Amino acid sequence: MNNPLNRKWLIKARPTGKVSESDFLFVDAPIPEPEEGEFLVKVMYLSATPVLRRHLRATDNGAGKVNTGDVMPGRGVGTVIKSRHKDFQAGDIIQGRFGWQEYAISSATGADMVHTIKQRRVPFSTGLGILGLNGFTAYLGMADVGQPKSGETVVVSGGAGGVGSKAGQIARLLGAGRIVGIAGSRKKCRIMIEDLGYDAAINYRQENVSTKLAEVCPEGIDVFFDNAGGVILDAALEHINKRARIVCCGRITDKTEKEQEEQRIKNYWRLGRQQARMEGFYVYDCLEDLPRAEEQLSKWLSEGKLNHSEDRLEGIEKMPEALMRVLKGQGEGKVVVRIDPEAA
Amino acid sequence: MNNPLNRKWLIKARPTGKVSESDFLFVDAPIPEPEEGEFLVKVMYLSATPVLRRHLRATDNGAGKVNTGDVMPGRGVGTVIKSRHKDFQAGDIIQGRFGWQEYAISSATGADMVHTIKQRRVPFSTGLGILGLNGFTAYLGMADVGQPKSGETVVVSGGAGGVGSKAGQIARLLGAGRIVGIAGSRKKCRIMIEDLGYDAAINYRQENVSTKLAEVCPEGIDVFFDNAGGVILDAALEHINKRARIVCCGRITDKTEKEQEEQRIKNYWRLGRQQARMEGFYVYDCLEDLPRAEEQLSKWLSEGKLNHSEDRLEGIEKMPEALMRVLKGQGEGKVVVRIDPEAA
Repeated sequence: MNNPLNRKWLIKARPTGKVSESDFLFVDAPIPEPEEGEFLVKVMYLSATPVLRRHLRATDNGAGKVNTGDVMPGRGVGTVIKSRHKDFQAGDIIQGRFGWQEYAISSATGADMVHTIKQRRVPFSTGLGILGLNGFTAYLGMADVGQPKSGETVVVSGGAGGVGSKAGQIARLLGAGRIVGIAGSRKKCRIMIEDLGYDAAINYRQENVSTKLAEVCPEGIDVFFDNAGGVILDAALEHINKRARIVCCGRITDKTEKEQEEQRIKNYWRLGRQQARMEGFYVYDCLEDLPRAEEQLSKWLSEGKLNHSEDRLEGIEKMPEALMRVLKGQGEGKVVVRIDPEAA
Repeated sequence: MNNPLNRKWLIKARPTGKVSESDFLFVDAPIPEPEEGEFLVKVMYLSATPVLRRHLRATDNGAGKVNTGDVMPGRGVGTVIKSRHKDFQAGDIIQGRFGWQEYAISSATGADMVHTIKQRRVPFSTGLGILGLNGFTAYLGMADVGQPKSGETVVVSGGAGGVGSKAGQIARLLGAGRIVGIAGSRKKCRIMIEDLGYDAAINYRQENVSTKLAEVCPEGIDVFFDNAGGVILDAALEHINKRARIVCCGRITDKTEKEQEEQRIKNYWRLGRQQARMEGFYVYDCLEDLPRAEEQLSKWLSEGKLNHSEDRLEGIEKMPEALMRVLKGQGEGKVVVRIDPEAA
C-alpha cells in the first residue's frame, strides 16, 4: 500500500509573470522519519488556494520565507502514521501545512499549526474547505464581524470562491434576508444562484457593480463580506446602510505593490457618514475560536444545510495544474487534489 | 441695548475656487417675530468650521440644500428671548444652527437640532467647542469607538483642530499612555506639545509621516483618530497594532470629487492582517448620547483637566474672515466669533 518513496514538488524558480508548471520540480525522495517532538503524516488531500502564490514571491509572508529548492508549501489533510509528539498519535486525522508531498514531518508549531479533525461523517477533504480554514474564516468572519441580523442584506465579493461560497450560505443560516454575490464569470454567477441559494449575482467583468448593487439591493447593504477590495469594495461602500459592517478578509495581503496601487479606494469616507465599520478578520489570530466554528458548521453539514461542492483533481502530479486553475479564477468551489487514492 | 436691526450675511455667490469675502453679502433686516412652534434667539457666538464650506457648494449636505440669497448657515450659541415653542422659554441658553445673523428664528426640528446648555460656569462660547458638537464628537468618537486602553498609543490627525485638540486630551484622560498629534504647521505642533500635553507632534508638511510615526510610536498605534484621510491615514495604517481602532470622523464628507480622488488609500488591507477596525462616527446620529458626553466633559472642565483655548474674533462683520482663517488651516484652537459684545 505505502509508496516506498515520497513524491514531492519543489519550487524550481520564482515566477516573474503567471505561474506555470515549469516553476516547479517533481522529485522522488525517501520517506522521512520523525524525530523527538515530531510526527509523520500521510497526506490524503492538498488544497489549492490563491494564498499559495505569495510563497512563490520573494517576500516573507509572516510564516517564514520559502526558498527556491524548498518543498512548495500548502495545507492539507492527512493521517498521522508515526508519532514522537506527545499530543498526536497514529490514526489522528489532522489538517496542517504539509506542503506538496505525499508524506510530511510536522512538529505542529508556529505556522505549521495543526487542527485535529474530530468529526468523521463527511469526506475528509472538507477539512480543507467547509471544515477547514476556509469554512472557519467564513463562519467567524460572518458571525462575529459581519453579524447579519434578521432580514438584512448581505453582499459577498468572491461569492463563489473558497471562503465566499461559504460566507453567503452562512449569512442565510444566520438569518439574513437577502444574499447577493459578486464574481467574475457567468458560470460562477449561475453557481451562486443555483447551488448556493443567493438571491442575486453580479458579474463584475460584465456589469457596473455600483449600478447593479443599487438595483439588487433596494434596501442598501448591511453586511459586505469582502474578498476583493479595490473597485468592488469602493462600489459597495457607495451603498452601505447606517451601521453597516464590512468584513475584510486577510488574504488581500497577497498583493504586489503594483496591485496595491490599483486597489486604492476612495469611498471609505462613507464609513464616517454612515457610522459604519470596516473590520479585518484573520483566522490565524483566532485559533481559540475554531472549535466553535467547527461545531456549528458540522451541525449544519449534518443537517444538509450547506452546499460544500468541491472541484477535485486526482493525484499529486496535478498540483501545479490545480493552483493555476485557482489563480485563473477557474475553480468551481473549493479546489482540492486527492493525493492518496484510497483517502475517504 | 438691543440693536433694532438684524445684521446678517447672505450667500452672494457660490465660490468656484477659494472662499473670499466677496462670496457674501452683509445686509440689515428687521428682527423677525416667532410664530407658533418657534422661538427667537439672540445670538452670542457663532462658530467657524470647515463643514461650512459644503454649504457654499451646490450640493445637498443632508441638512437641506442652501441657495444663493439665503442666510449663510452655521451653528452658534444664543439666548432665547421670545418663545412660542412649548419646550423653550426666554432665558434658555442653547446651541443650534442659527446662521450668520444676530437674531434667528428656530423651531428646533431636523437639521436645526438644538442642544440646551445647562452648565453656566464657563464662557458660553464653549458651547461651540469643548461643550458643543466638536467636544461631543471628540469624546464619543474616542470613548465609544476608539476605546483607548490603559497605556495604549493614540495618534490624532488634525491634532490641533476643533475636534482633534480635544480628542488627544480626552485619550489621555481615558488612560492612554502615549498621545501623538499630526498637524500642518510648526505652530500647531508647538501647541500640541505645550498646550495640549501631547507626547510627540508630527508636521505632515515637513516630515515623512510614516517614518516619523515609526519613530515616535515605538510600540505601534492602538487608536488612530482620523480627521484627515488620504496619505496620512495610509501612513497610519502601516503602523497599526493587532486589534487597532481607527475612528473616521464624519466631516471628511466635505470633499469634492477631485479631492476624493486625491484621498485614495491603499493600505486598508492592513485591517485584515491586523484584525483591526475602521469605524465611522457621526455626531448627528448620536443625539441620545450627547448628555453623557456633556456631563463628562463638564466634569473634566470644572476640574481644570481640559485645555479649551479659543481663537476668538469680535463682531459679526468678521464671519467671512473667520471662515477663511479656518479653511486656510490658520485657526489656533476653535475659531469662534463673538456676535453679542455683552455675551459672557
